[in-house]
Amino acid sequence: MTHRVRFYHAGCAICVDAERRFADALDPVKFDVEIVHLGDTPERIGEAEAAGVQSVPAFVIDGQAYHINFGAALADLKGGA
Amino acid sequence: MTHRVRFYHAGCAICVDAERRFADALDPVKFDVEIVHLGDTPERIGEAEAAGVQSVPAFVIDGQAYHINFGAALADLKGGA
Repeated sequence: MTHRVRFYHAGCAICVDAERRFADALDPVKFDVEIVHLGDTPERIGEAEAAGVQSVPAFVIDGQAYHINFGAALADLKGGA
Repeated sequence: MTHRVRFYHAGCAICVDAERRFADALDPVKFDVEIVHLGDTPERIGEAEAAGVQSVPAFVIDGQAYHINFGAALADLKGGA
């Protein structure tokens, strides 16, 4: 069975790098990765927040949030959207 | 060609979870992952630090550091080793 993975980002340089490194690196046999750009789809910020995402870039894998370095705080995305 | 990846951790719960999620998740065709326990091998803390690692768990992929959430600061590992 494949794991559902969401990768939340906001288009920042750190986000793009993390996407290239990790979202493209996960074993495609095991993971089904959805890329979510919160700048383009601010209506999904609530969903990310509910999953425990505090900053981007971040993965949510099986409901657990994993922050990769620090690009931008979710709170700042809400303000700037 | 496979990418050389080092995963630095210190045995903490956040480290173990990140290892399970990411170190085991990377596409084995593309990545050659070495797991480094800095609690067991404190002599490698300097090497992690030189690669830009500030806290564990963290990956170093092609010389670039990626911190996954926050388990412990490298500075604290040095003090406690």
